Amino acid sequence: MFKRYSEKNVLITGGLGFIGSNLARALVRIGAKVTLLDNLSQNCGGNSFNVSGLEKKLRIVLGDSRDVNTVRSLVKEQDFLFNLAGQTSHLDSMLAPFNDLHVNCEAPLAVLEACRLEERRIPIVFASTRQIYGRPTYFPVDENHPIQPIDINGVHKLAGEYYHLLYWRVHGLRCTILRLTNTIGPRMYIRDARQTFLGVWIRRLMEKEPFEVWGGNQLRDFTYVDDAVRALLLAGLNRKAAGQIFNLGGERVISLKDLADMLVSIKRGAGYEIRKYPARRKVIDIGDYFADDRRIRESLGWEPKVALPAALEQTVQYFEKHWEHYV
Amino acid sequence: MFKRYSEKNVLITGGLGFIGSNLARALVRIGAKVTLLDNLSQNCGGNSFNVSGLEKKLRIVLGDSRDVNTVRSLVKEQDFLFNLAGQTSHLDSMLAPFNDLHVNCEAPLAVLEACRLEERRIPIVFASTRQIYGRPTYFPVDENHPIQPIDINGVHKLAGEYYHLLYWRVHGLRCTILRLTNTIGPRMYIRDARQTFLGVWIRRLMEKEPFEVWGGNQLRDFTYVDDAVRALLLAGLNRKAAGQIFNLGGERVISLKDLADMLVSIKRGAGYEIRKYPARRKVIDIGDYFADDRRIRESLGWEPKVALPAALEQTVQYFEKHWEHYV
Repeated sequence: MFKRYSEKNVLITGGLGFIGSNLARALVRIGAKVTLLDNLSQNCGGNSFNVSGLEKKLRIVLGDSRDVNTVRSLVKEQDFLFNLAGQTSHLDSMLAPFNDLHVNCEAPLAVLEACRLEERRIPIVFASTRQIYGRPTYFPVDENHPIQPIDINGVHKLAGEYYHLLYWRVHGLRCTILRLTNTIGPRMYIRDARQTFLGVWIRRLMEKEPFEVWGGNQLRDFTYVDDAVRALLLAGLNRKAAGQIFNLGGERVISLKDLADMLVSIKRGAGYEIRKYPARRKVIDIGDYFADDRRIRESLGWEPKVALPAALEQTVQYFEKHWEHYV
Repeated sequence: MFKRYSEKNVLITGGLGFIGSNLARALVRIGAKVTLLDNLSQNCGGNSFNVSGLEKKLRIVLGDSRDVNTVRSLVKEQDFLFNLAGQTSHLDSMLAPFNDLHVNCEAPLAVLEACRLEERRIPIVFASTRQIYGRPTYFPVDENHPIQPIDINGVHKLAGEYYHLLYWRVHGLRCTILRLTNTIGPRMYIRDARQTFLGVWIRRLMEKEPFEVWGGNQLRDFTYVDDAVRALLLAGLNRKAAGQIFNLGGERVISLKDLADMLVSIKRGAGYEIRKYPARRKVIDIGDYFADDRRIRESLGWEPKVALPAALEQTVQYFEKHWEHYV
């Protein structure tokens, strides 16, 4: 099915980031002509090493998705656009709210404006986040769950969603929104907990330092990046996906403590310590979360295929091999 | 009751605008020490004439609410803050989405940041809009109605709301949100339809040109500005209002055609013409709207006191007297 991407022109904003680069690798394998736009902004996860070995098989543009003209020049004659550029740290968004505003509102808006002006017919898939739901009031969380972002990042990612819905409704741009949960896998950001706590867990594990589990009873789901990439590819191909919002979920629901045990069973490291949730983080913590992802399963035929232990194992193996490029 | 504002320091962002200036006049009458912050940004409704005669009774700061330092310096030793600065044109927001982003996201965020850094204990009342609901799915529209903004302005005003809720929840700022419907009255913006179609109706009426009614069957409610000002003042005084969202409604629900007839019965002018809704406007039109405002009636004891015909009459009389300052 994904053969339909073969020979097609595909633009990925944030293409040097964790998910963008995994998507790029998949597309190059399929035979697509891939262009990556990334500004390698500090702390956003962009990393040239993420596409190492592919430098001759794709085009990398170091530029800013917030610049409408840059995007206009790139989006011409594209067949698909994956709009992944963004800042994902919840804590950073609270410490530097204007930066989060500039990154997470201006970038998607500029990309949509560029498409409106230049190229209205291509599918656009936007990576949003479960953070917009805030603290869930019921489980599993479906797409109709009340929206109540509890950090600045959630407010701005939500604005990003509304832009896409608006440009679909008003300008006919074929936008689809995926609400990602914790995505994990090779090339994830592990320098610190900016993208997911699991990143810093893996880092500490590698460094043979105990990692900290805050709380431990919180329930979460995790999408392996190959599964997330498949969801993106499915959303790009399906005409019915335009104007739609889809949750991505995981292969299972697990408590953080059980996840820590699973991780330690794969690579012992120095184990972990349970800590009380730090107060300044707690206030923007969403507590339990796991998605109802039946809509994407039913509409697009997606399902997570990689079991969590295998996902963790492949992630750990990747970083054991390429450690020096990620810390 | 409003005597509690007497001798108090009150800051109004967007204070030279339609609602801000009416609020300022009410507060000066009560004996408050009022500071207005306004950048007189084009097309936003700020107008120095709105406070004519009061120049010595209040302080006007020509500056930008988007500048955290400006707001920090002003917010010190204030007792109340009314956060009204904004761009309200739905059409402009679609034509210049980045400008709307900069005005309607950066300004409230900067005001909240300034308060977080400088002055955390004062009540902050934010003027939001019914536009965030988009096209209503049931009537009357209460505060739990689904949120589905259908223009850029609605997306950004919604972000403004979420900022206020967030700064209440995370930083303890005493924020209250009022979702205004069409507000009408002396000092409203009448140069064109940017703030409300009724503005341009009144202008055309005065100019003895027929005004255009697009459609005519749409149902709407209208709040007279004195009633809106009373809601703002009530929200500022009531501790229970912190963290709350309140719809404002009108004294009655009326179709645009009936409203046009009512207006013409007050001042004949050249009457009106029914027109088909222009396509590029229709796509961001919300259709019918009227609010369920029981929450503010029950929680804060607010109710609209000025009947619609009287509201229209006072508005028309005001502009007959001060026409040259508004067109």
